[in-house]
Amino acid sequence: MKTPATVLGLGAMGTALARAFLAAGHPTTVWNRTPDRSPELDDLGVTRAKTVADAIAASPLVVVCLLDDASVRDTLAPAASELGSRTLVNLVNGTPEQARRTADWTTQQDAEYLDGGIMAVPVMIGGPAAFILYSGSETAFERHQADLAALARPTFVGSDPGLAALHDLALLSGMYGMFGGAAHALALISSEKVSPTAFTAELLVPWLTAMLGAVSGIANDLEYGAEPGAAGSNLAMQAAAFGNLTEASHAQGVDPRMLIPMRDLLDRAVAEGHGDEDLAATVRLLAKD
Amino acid sequence: MKTPATVLGLGAMGTALARAFLAAGHPTTVWNRTPDRSPELDDLGVTRAKTVADAIAASPLVVVCLLDDASVRDTLAPAASELGSRTLVNLVNGTPEQARRTADWTTQQDAEYLDGGIMAVPVMIGGPAAFILYSGSETAFERHQADLAALARPTFVGSDPGLAALHDLALLSGMYGMFGGAAHALALISSEKVSPTAFTAELLVPWLTAMLGAVSGIANDLEYGAEPGAAGSNLAMQAAAFGNLTEASHAQGVDPRMLIPMRDLLDRAVAEGHGDEDLAATVRLLAKD
Ligand SMILES: NC(=O)c1ccc[n+]([C@@H]2O[C@H](COP(=O)([O-])OP(=O)(O)OC[C@H]3O[C@@H](n4cnc5c(N)ncnc54)[C@H](OP(=O)(O)O)[C@@H]3O)[C@@H](O)[C@H]2O)c1
Ligand SMILES: NC(=O)c1ccc[n+]([C@@H]2O[C@H](COP(=O)([O-])OP(=O)(O)OC[C@H]3O[C@@H](n4cnc5c(N)ncnc54)[C@H](OP(=O)(O)O)[C@@H]3O)[C@@H](O)[C@H]2O)c1
Repeated sequence: MKTPATVLGLGAMGTALARAFLAAGHPTTVWNRTPDRSPELDDLGVTRAKTVADAIAASPLVVVCLLDDASVRDTLAPAASELGSRTLVNLVNGTPEQARRTADWTTQQDAEYLDGGIMAVPVMIGGPAAFILYSGSETAFERHQADLAALARPTFVGSDPGLAALHDLALLSGMYGMFGGAAHALALISSEKVSPTAFTAELLVPWLTAMLGAVSGIANDLEYGAEPGAAGSNLAMQAAAFGNLTEASHAQGVDPRMLIPMRDLLDRAVAEGHGDEDLAATVRLLAKD
Repeated sequence: MKTPATVLGLGAMGTALARAFLAAGHPTTVWNRTPDRSPELDDLGVTRAKTVADAIAASPLVVVCLLDDASVRDTLAPAASELGSRTLVNLVNGTPEQARRTADWTTQQDAEYLDGGIMAVPVMIGGPAAFILYSGSETAFERHQADLAALARPTFVGSDPGLAALHDLALLSGMYGMFGGAAHALALISSEKVSPTAFTAELLVPWLTAMLGAVSGIANDLEYGAEPGAAGSNLAMQAAAFGNLTEASHAQGVDPRMLIPMRDLLDRAVAEGHGDEDLAATVRLLAKD
């Protein structure tokens, strides 16, 4: 028999998680504050627990997918005595500090703790592109890795329970930077009635894909130092050329706000004597403050 | 015989362009304000013109690669009478307005005009990954497309001469957004001594590659409207979750400035009633101001 699993929380994401456990053949127990949510799970053979304590008692593997950190505390505290010898997997979005606090509390209940960051939207759960970052008890991860694979590709990032949240937040920052740049790009080309889909398919996506090579270059520089001359275009040159971007944005009636922090950061890097370095200098400036 | 080509300006980029023309077998004439720059070109058989007028007279195809718009005007004005019946290709970084002005002026000299945006650094010129965006005279583009292919893959984006600069600036905005997000991501993970190269290779690059699909989704929404429910995660949810990003950045000692414009834009989208839309709404907000 597959490991019985419990899911606390049947929001959009919790429902997708429960469905994936059921699809993979895990006896699955669910609990939700508002009862009877996601009735489609009943046809798939789910067990509904009346209380959080019952839900936790039903399975060695307990996955939490509630709104936020406060709702996790409110939900688990009254059922703390049931947690002993279970593995609690907290997939609620939060900060590294929140994860470390919940880890400490869980360990005090004699349970093992894994924190997780879901890198997917609900429709992707159970599919090939989704992955979930885990950190915390490596023993618990190894024990339940195959079970957790029913949800999404499990990726362990370290035993400090805060690391999954840290990696999650870092990936989301990278994504929002890319989305912000893309939003500005699309606003610019829309100002001249260029087709957004043609521009994106033929130019923007291939260009950003190529420029991912430069992102790897920044990481290399951070870890091993810059290869001499590897920069190709140093920060002084980039700062000087950046003015065209904001000027042309204004001229096209596009709000340049997405570009301002990078302009200021490049200017500051040059003013502080990093004009002959490459973009790794901007990472160091962000980390120093 | 291959079309004779002239390059005005032997900075880092102009030198790379002249070398690529020579390598492809084009009789190549160069001029630079400071004479005798890039002596390595002499061994490759370059012809050095004493004056701009001589350089223009030498070839039907004249490529300009100077510092900026002002240097283009200063350089070409005294030699305007030589331009008749030539094709002027201006590869100087600039704004759409500057390109349109230079196009008008060039047409008044009975010459044809192409504006270009070089999507490459000098070492990439002549190689497979580089491309150059062109706009302006389609006749001139068709006549010289094969010649220009010696420099980088030529991509025509429209007969309005401002369009190459517009596309160039849009692609650079997208790139700087991605670099800004990546810089923040790398600053975050560096705060916990995670390996930047392992993080980038195993997580950041695959994640950003996957999220390029969402960029295409934004473009689709802009052009054809949103498919109902396609958003998966609407702006209200994203705005609510964004606070974790800035809070955790502060907690990790990382300056959150790269994230602020996106946070503000999401908040404004929600405040103005777009909470149930997807990221295409942010493009519309940027374009409206
Ligand atoms: N959706 C995504 O794309 C996505 C992606 C990655 C990560 N996540 C994370 O997954 C988690 C859940 O997201 P979701 O999309 O499922 O959210 P959702 O659809 O809004 O569902 C929220 C869930 O939390 C419950 N809840 C809220 N406050 C509660 C409280 N005080 N006590 C007990 N239960 C409470 C709700 O119960 P009721 O039914 O009683 O209201 C509901 O089950 C969040 O941390 C989110 O950041 C979501
Ligand atoms: N390098 C890149 O990665 C790159 C990428 C894409 C586009 N571009 C664009 O290509 C153009 C050239 O860039 P670059 O890297 O070659 O720059 P660069 O190495 O700084 O060279 C500047 C060139 O402009 C000349 N110049 C400057 N002011 C002048 C004036 N008033 N009159 C006449 N000539 C003048 C310089 O001549 P002297 O030798 O006499 O100083 C030199 O030939 C720029 O528009 C740049 O934005 C460059």
